[in-house]
Amino acid sequence: MKVLITGIDGYTGWPLALHLLNRGHEVVGLDNFVTRRRVREVGSWSATPIAPFPRRQAAVKELLGKEVGFYSGDLGRYDFVAEVLRRERPDAIVHLAEQRSAPYSMIDVHHAVATQVQNLTGTLHLLYAIRAEVPEAHLVKMGTMGEYGTPNIEIPEGFFEIEYRGRQDRLPYPRQAGSFYHWSKVFDSGDVMFACKIWGLRSTDVMQGVIYGTRTPDITDDRLLTRFDFDEVWGTALNRFCVEAVLGLPITPYGKGEQVRGFIALEDSMQSLRIALENPPAPGEYRVWNQFDEAYSVNQLAEVTSRVARELGYDPRIEHPPDPRVEAEQHFYHPVHEHLPALGYRRTRELAEALRDIFRDLRRFRRRLEAKRQVVMMGVNWRVPDNRAHLSAQSPLGPTAPPAPPTSGGGAAPPPPSA
Amino acid sequence: MKVLITGIDGYTGWPLALHLLNRGHEVVGLDNFVTRRRVREVGSWSATPIAPFPRRQAAVKELLGKEVGFYSGDLGRYDFVAEVLRRERPDAIVHLAEQRSAPYSMIDVHHAVATQVQNLTGTLHLLYAIRAEVPEAHLVKMGTMGEYGTPNIEIPEGFFEIEYRGRQDRLPYPRQAGSFYHWSKVFDSGDVMFACKIWGLRSTDVMQGVIYGTRTPDITDDRLLTRFDFDEVWGTALNRFCVEAVLGLPITPYGKGEQVRGFIALEDSMQSLRIALENPPAPGEYRVWNQFDEAYSVNQLAEVTSRVARELGYDPRIEHPPDPRVEAEQHFYHPVHEHLPALGYRRTRELAEALRDIFRDLRRFRRRLEAKRQVVMMGVNWRVPDNRAHLSAQSPLGPTAPPAPPTSGGGAAPPPPSA
Repeated sequence: MKVLITGIDGYTGWPLALHLLNRGHEVVGLDNFVTRRRVREVGSWSATPIAPFPRRQAAVKELLGKEVGFYSGDLGRYDFVAEVLRRERPDAIVHLAEQRSAPYSMIDVHHAVATQVQNLTGTLHLLYAIRAEVPEAHLVKMGTMGEYGTPNIEIPEGFFEIEYRGRQDRLPYPRQAGSFYHWSKVFDSGDVMFACKIWGLRSTDVMQGVIYGTRTPDITDDRLLTRFDFDEVWGTALNRFCVEAVLGLPITPYGKGEQVRGFIALEDSMQSLRIALENPPAPGEYRVWNQFDEAYSVNQLAEVTSRVARELGYDPRIEHPPDPRVEAEQHFYHPVHEHLPALGYRRTRELAEALRDIFRDLRRFRRRLEAKRQVVMMGVNWRVPDNRAHLSAQSPLGPTAPPAPPTSGGGAAPPPPSA
Repeated sequence: MKVLITGIDGYTGWPLALHLLNRGHEVVGLDNFVTRRRVREVGSWSATPIAPFPRRQAAVKELLGKEVGFYSGDLGRYDFVAEVLRRERPDAIVHLAEQRSAPYSMIDVHHAVATQVQNLTGTLHLLYAIRAEVPEAHLVKMGTMGEYGTPNIEIPEGFFEIEYRGRQDRLPYPRQAGSFYHWSKVFDSGDVMFACKIWGLRSTDVMQGVIYGTRTPDITDDRLLTRFDFDEVWGTALNRFCVEAVLGLPITPYGKGEQVRGFIALEDSMQSLRIALENPPAPGEYRVWNQFDEAYSVNQLAEVTSRVARELGYDPRIEHPPDPRVEAEQHFYHPVHEHLPALGYRRTRELAEALRDIFRDLRRFRRRLEAKRQVVMMGVNWRVPDNRAHLSAQSPLGPTAPPAPPTSGGGAAPPPPSA
């Protein structure tokens, strides 16, 4: 099958391309490289050195003997999106081209607006272009388990059958997202569900758990490495913990550290996406999958990281800074994940093994971490509406750094009043 | 109290200003006059002739002896929004400045994107500006009963207590909106709820039923008239039915006509908003009110319109064109509305009485309707992704008309790729 990956240059987009190519699928991608720019905006870079895209393509040609088609461009331009679909006519589209950082969306008003406007616009353009050009194509849309928040009842996969005051219905499960970024994913889900209803499109909306790891079996050469972000804005908590251990800094779970989330290894996330692609929904069907492997508390992550770090000769201690997010630090958490196992999903990677791989890679690239020690903790606080004003001058995001507003200029500029 | 009304030039914004002024409140407004422009875009105008805003202000001065402060500008510019709040320091903000037409949002991709991007951006800018400038102010946000769709269970006010697989929680009620416009309101609700949570803002999110009427007791002079839209894009079904009767056209409930919705008279909507303003929520509280008076099916509306029209000497017949929307034509509908009656809300206007007022006004302005017969039915179809291509050349929206893209140019233009 031919798969278009939007955001092919990203952390999951690139390994997904390798995974699909190695299983005989045809892959074409598009990207605007905005994540590379935005990671620079906060003064950081990927722990793993990643090749510019043309060198990635050349490496795939040399090592796998395959071509990766590529369009450099932006989902914010409808004509571009429609043109790519018209030329390529993919069987499926995996949509990963979104701003993916919760702290980035919470920096200030302009970052919040840019996140929601750009994510929503890209998804709407893609939906309309699919309807116009390839209405049979399967859209695999990357959402997040964070759409659900932490309700006090089980979290089913997208929908639930309920009885309320003596009547029954199957309804979308309520969403309680925890950042303007997470809300942007909730909004996408609404539009995708609605497009399937009115136009008969088919989609898998993936409620993705937090992904961990530097490696998949397809990454056989450093030229094929994917990015690994460790700064407090772009990296995950687990990534930060590993880098803290390598740099001799304390490991820093926020607050009580009893926040529980769903996690999955990078290669098992690739497995899951492939299962979705190879088992498409019926026309008009909108299905939601909870795509995680195991739930861990932040404290459990800190403890496993600490244990693996000690095996490797590091000596980290654990500290609990105040939680900069507004979230429950102790809560019930029981998300269901049944669709993927029913279609053959099996875990192939344990957390501790993946951590050993991560440490092995971070050790090799230790100098890249040392050069950026100051970004491991930056202090974007959910309660503060303008973090640029509040952060210290030492922070890459602080008031003396160049302001670097998001490139959209804060979203759509509405028309001047006609008075 | 001092109230800022965003969208003060609109159908509800203007009568709300009059209503609050007459009850001793101070009113300041802002507007960018985009609705006037967009109604022209589809070849239509208000059935009632409405004065330019400076003449509205002059009439208020002459007739009521009061001032209405006014800022001409756009919620798409954050600095403007913050500046207005800094200067005025309102006790409450009633946010009505949004694209409010479902068919407009369904014209094509650019109208869908403009609707969602502009509505979302305006609300986010307002939330951040309130947090920065007047964090104690009460935000009354205009949503729609259409956020809920037509579930097979009761519709409570925003939240519900449920039991699911043996556990309980109070959760946001699931939303199943029926157009990209209605989804934009769902998205707003998410952001407002979240802002109350993280910053302690206070808000009433109004799930507004369909409003009907040309009159409130405060409209004592033609210079104080509010707009009344009757074209198929900007008018409501009831408005269309009245105009059809006056023009000797068939009354046109879509499909089976058994779609049920909540309705409220214009003056009772004003009463409800005033009750919200005079009974603000606590800091940090996000409350949702279902603001409608009575539920009617589209067939019931057609029948009441037909009956009142006959009293007045018209002789309409009822025809059922195919439903251009994707919606259930027969369904359960039982929304709850308890908060407003508990605070003293009482119906002051019956549907049939309001219809007599509407007919009285339409009769006076009959020539304005006759000049625009062609916009009463225009044919924006939910199943068609590009209605400009599909409509006839006779339609004001059709292919030979000037394209008139939304002024945002289809939303935020993302940055060019850095390759």
